[in-house]
Amino acid sequence: MNKLHVITLLTDFGYQDVYVGTMKGILAQIAPHATPIDLTHQISPQDLWAAQFNLGNAYHYFPTNTIHLVVVDPGVGTSRRAIALHTNAGYFVAPDNGVLTPVLQQETLYQAVTLDRSDYWLTPKPSTTFHGQDIFAPIAAHLANGVTMTQLGSPIPVESLVQLPLPRPQVTSEKIVGTVQYIDHFGNCITNIAAEQLTGQAWAIQLDDQTVSIGQTYGDRAPGAMVALIGSHGWLEIALNRGNAQAQLQWRVGKLVTIVKTATT
Amino acid sequence: MNKLHVITLLTDFGYQDVYVGTMKGILAQIAPHATPIDLTHQISPQDLWAAQFNLGNAYHYFPTNTIHLVVVDPGVGTSRRAIALHTNAGYFVAPDNGVLTPVLQQETLYQAVTLDRSDYWLTPKPSTTFHGQDIFAPIAAHLANGVTMTQLGSPIPVESLVQLPLPRPQVTSEKIVGTVQYIDHFGNCITNIAAEQLTGQAWAIQLDDQTVSIGQTYGDRAPGAMVALIGSHGWLEIALNRGNAQAQLQWRVGKLVTIVKTATT
Amino acid sequence: MNKLHVITLLTDFGYQDVYVGTMKGILAQIAPHATPIDLTHQISPQDLWAAQFNLGNAYHYFPTNTIHLVVVDPGVGTSRRAIALHTNAGYFVAPDNGVLTPVLQQETLYQAVTLDRSDYWLTPKPSTTFHGQDIFAPIAAHLANGVTMTQLGSPIPVESLVQLPLPRPQVTSEKIVGTVQYIDHFGNCITNIAAEQLTGQAWAIQLDDQTVSIGQTYGDRAPGAMVALIGSHGWLEIALNRGNAQAQLQWRVGKLVTIVKTATT
Repeated sequence: MNKLHVITLLTDFGYQDVYVGTMKGILAQIAPHATPIDLTHQISPQDLWAAQFNLGNAYHYFPTNTIHLVVVDPGVGTSRRAIALHTNAGYFVAPDNGVLTPVLQQETLYQAVTLDRSDYWLTPKPSTTFHGQDIFAPIAAHLANGVTMTQLGSPIPVESLVQLPLPRPQVTSEKIVGTVQYIDHFGNCITNIAAEQLTGQAWAIQLDDQTVSIGQTYGDRAPGAMVALIGSHGWLEIALNRGNAQAQLQWRVGKLVTIVKTATT
Repeated sequence: MNKLHVITLLTDFGYQDVYVGTMKGILAQIAPHATPIDLTHQISPQDLWAAQFNLGNAYHYFPTNTIHLVVVDPGVGTSRRAIALHTNAGYFVAPDNGVLTPVLQQETLYQAVTLDRSDYWLTPKPSTTFHGQDIFAPIAAHLANGVTMTQLGSPIPVESLVQLPLPRPQVTSEKIVGTVQYIDHFGNCITNIAAEQLTGQAWAIQLDDQTVSIGQTYGDRAPGAMVALIGSHGWLEIALNRGNAQAQLQWRVGKLVTIVKTATT
Repeated sequence: MNKLHVITLLTDFGYQDVYVGTMKGILAQIAPHATPIDLTHQISPQDLWAAQFNLGNAYHYFPTNTIHLVVVDPGVGTSRRAIALHTNAGYFVAPDNGVLTPVLQQETLYQAVTLDRSDYWLTPKPSTTFHGQDIFAPIAAHLANGVTMTQLGSPIPVESLVQLPLPRPQVTSEKIVGTVQYIDHFGNCITNIAAEQLTGQAWAIQLDDQTVSIGQTYGDRAPGAMVALIGSHGWLEIALNRGNAQAQLQWRVGKLVTIVKTATT
């Protein structure tokens, strides 16, 4: 069987407890050859939007034979399905709650299964509270060992998979109204307006007390000045050069952001 | 010599500084074949109770030839001993301050040594402030290389090892009075009442303004409702479905928790 | 080509986002044999002083064929150079902004290059906001694969490298006036006064309401008492035994600290 060597982990478990460590122990037991790599464990508890944003910006930097293990699972213990996907961009193991939406929207799906074969779980009677430990980590480890998708679960149609599509910005002839979809550690406020929507035209964003043209990098403006730019993830973001835009603007996820055309470039 | 491949780390060093990184550098120098796995580094400074709770819930998910390196060490630089244990559940390297109590209570001890052989330390004159770097990490690395317990230290009797046993709940014919022993990242309040104490009987817990029957999973109640259940660790915990019980109840570790019988199941 | 096996990462990216995970994905793609080890990612945003303090206290615990990847980069997207150093203590990849000052001051430099060969970047047109992903991580991975320094960039003279030397304490016949250069996770206030400056003499530090002699370890004084000692890093630090000195003293980085001679030892 063909072994896989990298398993990423993205959860809302935080760093205080041993929940992540426990999952890595299970990986070390079942698939000792595999290397776990943390994407993040500081997703706000049960925040599927933040989880899919972070996953969507990370997985394509990994080898395409990577297994991505995603456990943000507000429905643990209910009838929500546990699933695994095989795509052109790698394998994904997660609850079927929409957290894999970026993968479903952007990648070619080879196969989807519902994880109903308890032989590959840690125990045939999993806890009702921690499927990361009892189902998802063991499944990822068995995948790494070369167990096939159809050994791990029954095929399911792609149409049945839960999706949480990002709200689209409203576009008119003179402006685009989007929202803040994520605020990162630096306080950068990242919108749902994509770089592609801004081509062929100069744009500016109206903040409370100033208009900021959409520029190129933090260093384009003085320290302490607001900057609007396309981040490395491809979305329009509002940042404060050498500072924290969120702390100054007091914005939250969901805040409406309006940009207007200024001149043809 | 028989090499060991996994070394876990559990400390109160936090993630801000390079104390953990320094220990991993020493592991990489002495035992480059070994893989370090973080359990957690966010134990509250010097909190031996949180350390033993987290250790006790994690080590048994790892291969039994794992080395568990535990550095929560309020007595560093005093005469407290540095010890290593070899048990049926793996190796443990730690200060002798009670942090290994769950291991001593639940596992078969093959050998205990006090780490008095400075040949295996980073330096024969260790600092008085950071034995994680100067003693514990090098010892774990030498263990990983196959150095034997008795090369690393002098055997000591199990009776001499410091223990910090968890206070037991008070059990009467109609109720059990326990305490909160740990509050996790999600705000789940975990008591010292074990699943075994609840069998054969239905129970409920009296909170400030409501009685909550001890149920099965978060999804059994509506979002925002209190839930009392047996967590994946085997202890009774009080949680808020899709919320933070600690933030709502304002409980702290040590809070008394009373549960009462409601009917025979 | 001679492969290198350990790559450390030190950034101000925090643990909330996937910026670090993305860099590790690139390392896994280009240099799958290499092991990434986190030094810390909780440097305060753009804090070059904290970054160099932490780097300076960690790198010499690693094998001398380690690659240290440092991305604290307030000037990203401007004309500041990206550099790599080969020294007797290992390889360093970082922006040329002074963050490598401890290495330049303490180690033998074999070669310095400016990273101007875009063939070894992730993309010939890097983003203006995230060179950790687009330049620094790929360069570190290629170094790990045995690509030579001069393949990665053009040699530059050591004199051209930016340095941020630590301010030196003022020394008079009776006292030394230093400053707090770093405050760690435990609240220990670490000064810029080195152990070597205290030899041959007994010293004390004057705090608001007490004089504390410079002692040996936390356990020398009662729990809750202030302690002044030489930390494992070699600097004079002020700590609170089993407590948090920063929280009690309300000191910040830059606080002046005066120590006075008390008697010849």
